[in-house]
Amino acid sequence: MENHFQQHRIDANGKGLGRFPADATLGEVASLRWNVLAEEVSLPTAVLRESRIEHNLRWMRDFITRYGVKLAPHGKTTMSPALFHRQLEHGAWGITLATAPQVQAAYRHGIRRVLLANQLVGRANMTIIDTLQRDPGFAFWCCVDSVANIAALGAHFAAAGQRLNVLLELGVAGGRTGARDEAAEAALIAEIARWPALRLCGIELYEGVLKDEAAIRALLRRAATRLQALSAAGALQTERVVLTGAGSAWFDVVAEEWSGLTLAQPLDIVLRPGCYLTHDVGIYQAAQQRIEANNPVAQAMNASLLPALQLWAYVQSLPEPGVAIIGLGKRDAAFDAGLPQPALHHRPGESAPRAAPAGWALTRMMDQHAFMQVAPNSDVAVGDLVAFEISHPCLTFDKWRQLALVDEHYTVTGLVETFF
Amino acid sequence: MENHFQQHRIDANGKGLGRFPADATLGEVASLRWNVLAEEVSLPTAVLRESRIEHNLRWMRDFITRYGVKLAPHGKTTMSPALFHRQLEHGAWGITLATAPQVQAAYRHGIRRVLLANQLVGRANMTIIDTLQRDPGFAFWCCVDSVANIAALGAHFAAAGQRLNVLLELGVAGGRTGARDEAAEAALIAEIARWPALRLCGIELYEGVLKDEAAIRALLRRAATRLQALSAAGALQTERVVLTGAGSAWFDVVAEEWSGLTLAQPLDIVLRPGCYLTHDVGIYQAAQQRIEANNPVAQAMNASLLPALQLWAYVQSLPEPGVAIIGLGKRDAAFDAGLPQPALHHRPGESAPRAAPAGWALTRMMDQHAFMQVAPNSDVAVGDLVAFEISHPCLTFDKWRQLALVDEHYTVTGLVETFF
Repeated sequence: MENHFQQHRIDANGKGLGRFPADATLGEVASLRWNVLAEEVSLPTAVLRESRIEHNLRWMRDFITRYGVKLAPHGKTTMSPALFHRQLEHGAWGITLATAPQVQAAYRHGIRRVLLANQLVGRANMTIIDTLQRDPGFAFWCCVDSVANIAALGAHFAAAGQRLNVLLELGVAGGRTGARDEAAEAALIAEIARWPALRLCGIELYEGVLKDEAAIRALLRRAATRLQALSAAGALQTERVVLTGAGSAWFDVVAEEWSGLTLAQPLDIVLRPGCYLTHDVGIYQAAQQRIEANNPVAQAMNASLLPALQLWAYVQSLPEPGVAIIGLGKRDAAFDAGLPQPALHHRPGESAPRAAPAGWALTRMMDQHAFMQVAPNSDVAVGDLVAFEISHPCLTFDKWRQLALVDEHYTVTGLVETFF
Repeated sequence: MENHFQQHRIDANGKGLGRFPADATLGEVASLRWNVLAEEVSLPTAVLRESRIEHNLRWMRDFITRYGVKLAPHGKTTMSPALFHRQLEHGAWGITLATAPQVQAAYRHGIRRVLLANQLVGRANMTIIDTLQRDPGFAFWCCVDSVANIAALGAHFAAAGQRLNVLLELGVAGGRTGARDEAAEAALIAEIARWPALRLCGIELYEGVLKDEAAIRALLRRAATRLQALSAAGALQTERVVLTGAGSAWFDVVAEEWSGLTLAQPLDIVLRPGCYLTHDVGIYQAAQQRIEANNPVAQAMNASLLPALQLWAYVQSLPEPGVAIIGLGKRDAAFDAGLPQPALHHRPGESAPRAAPAGWALTRMMDQHAFMQVAPNSDVAVGDLVAFEISHPCLTFDKWRQLALVDEHYTVTGLVETFF
C-alpha cells in the first residue's frame, strides 16, 4: 500500500517544499535531493527525521510486545495514512480515529481496522460508516455513552441492513464523554440490547482527562471489573472482546493495569497513543519522563522516545536589539501547549548547524510570525535558519498538507501527505 | 477565472461535506442540494453565508470608494483564490499575501497583482518569486527592513535578470518588523540604491502591532512624511508609488490619515484588511464597533459588517448535568482569540433553528471536542445541531480545505477551496 502513495503528486500549491517538475510525484522526491540546509526548500517547512521516526516506531513495538497488549495508534495526530501504514508494519493492530471523515480518509488509503474513539453522531456521519461497512473486510468499532445516540445508531444501521460494533464508554465526573456511574452504564447496556443492529463488543475509556494517577488507576480498574461482569453475563456477543484506553501520556499505567486481565472470551487490550511517533519537547516529553521514571518495562528498554518533528524557519528581521522576528507562525506550529523551542541554528554556507544558544526563546506568535528573544550581542543574521522543536504534534501536523522526511543531513528523502 | 474552480473535484478525503458521486466537481455541488439542517452534511462543517459574504464585499467596496483608496485584501485570511476573485470583482486592486508559497498558490489560481506584506527571505522563496516574475503580466511588491536582506535580494534578482519592486517597511519600537528610526531607514534606502535589480516603489507598514490610536496616527503620519521626502528626492523610480498599511482593525484610521495625500508622482494608497470578508463575533467585531463609533464614513454607510462564517456541530454527549460535549475542536475552529460562540440550536426534524439560549457557552476546547456549559434544565439532546460563530477567521479558515457556501436555508450552493 505504501508504494501507492508514491504515485500521488507533489502539492503544486504547497508550502515547505523545494522545486519540482510539473506533475512530479511523491515517489520522485528523493531523486530531487532537496537539502534544507542548502536552502533548497521553501521555509518554513516541517520535517520528520526518518531515523527518529523509525526509532520511535520500534520503541513502541517493543513496549507493547513486552506487555502483550495491542496498539491502535491515534491517527488523528498525524492524519497521514503513509505513517499509519508504517505503524501497522511496526506491529499496530489497527488505527484509532476521532471522526467519520477521518475514518473515510483512512479507509480510502488502505486502512481496514479502525477504532473510532468517539461517539458516531448524526445521519451523514453514520452514512459514511455504513458505506464503508459494505466492505466485509473493514472492521470498525465506535463508542456509545447515551441512550439517544444508541437508539439513533440502532435504527440507522438496522435500516442499512448492517450490524455496528459498539464499545461502552466509561467516563468520570468532571471528565469528557462516557458513562459516569453504574446506573448510566446499565441504561446504556439495556438500550444496546434492544437493537439487533448493535453488537456490544467491549469497553472504551480515555484516561487522559484525569491528571491524577490514583484516579486513573481507579478508572482502569472500574473498566476491568465492568468488562468481566459483562462477559460473565454473556452481554458481549462478539468473537473477540475489546478493552481500550490510553492516550499518549498514561499508556504505561494502562498497560500495567490491564495487561494481566483475562476473560472466558478472547480479549484484545488495545492502547491508543498517537504522539509517540514524533514525540515532542513539551507536554509529551514531560509525560514520557514520568513514564520512564515509574514504569519498569520502559526502564528495561534502555531507550527513550525521541523528538522527530522539526520546523525550520528563517530569521526574517532583526528590527531592534534582543529581538529576532522569525518567519514561522500559528499557521505553521502548535502554540497551545507551549511555543516551539529553538533547537538548531544554521547559517547558509556553513557546513552544519550549531545548537541554538540557550537564551533563544520564542515569546509570542502571530499568524505568520514569531518573536524570538535573543541576547543583544547574539550572533544572528537575517537569512539564518533556525530549527524549532515543538509541543503537541497533533496541532502541528494539521498545519501541513505534506511533510518532508529527512535524513541526518537534512536531505529530503520523501514526503508524507496529511488528510485533515 | 472563477468558473475554472468549478472543474476542481470535491475532496473525497474531506470533512464537513455531504455525499457525492465519485469524481464530482465543485460545479456540481449546488445540484446535490445538501442541506445542513436536514443532516445531509457531515458535521462539524464550516459554512459561509452567501448573502452576508456579498454584503461584506459591498460594504468594503463602498468604504474604499468613499475614501478614494485602493484595496488589496490580505489573502492569508482565507487562502481561497475563489474568494480572492470575488474580492477583485468587488473593487479590490490586488491581493496581499504573507509568504512566497501563498503567492505561488494565488498565482496558480489567476491572481496577477500581489503585495507581499512581508520580507522575502531565503533562496527557495526568492526562486518562487523570480519564477512567477517570468510572466510580465504578474505585478509584485515585497517589503524590506534589513540591509542584509536587501543585499541578498539585489544579488538574487540580478542573477535572475529581473527587477524586484520593494517597499520600505516602517516599524515601531516594541513592534514587529520594520525600520525603527530615520537612521535605519537611511541605511536601507542607501542599500536599495546600490542594487540596480531593486526598485524602491514606496512605503509599507502594519499599524496593527499598536493598540493606541494616537500612536497609530503618529506612525501613519511618519510614513506619509517619509514618502513625500522620498518622492521629492527622486528616490521612487516607479510609474506609480505605493503607500500601504491597514489590517482589519484600524483600516478606518489609515484611510482617514492617508486619503488626502498627494505626491508629484501617481500614488496608490492601498489598504489591506482581510477579515472584513467573513467578519466575526470576537476581536474583529470589537474593532468594527470602534470603527463605526468613530469613523464618519462608516457611519454614513448605515450598515455594518456581518459575521458570515459559522461552524455547525453536533451535541455528542450529555454526560452530566450542565455540560454538553460538542463534536467541534481545535481542529475545526480558532481558539486563540476567544472560543466559538453558540448562535443557533437546531433539532433534526424541526422546521428551522432557534437562537441558542443565552446561557450556552464553550468553556474549553480539545483537539476534536468542545465543552459547552448549559443550564441543567436546558432543552438539549444528543444529536442536536449547534451553530457557532467565531473569533479570528484566519485561524478558522486554515482548519478547512473546502468550506460550504450556503443560502439562507442552509442549503449548500457551492464549495470554496483553501490552499494553506
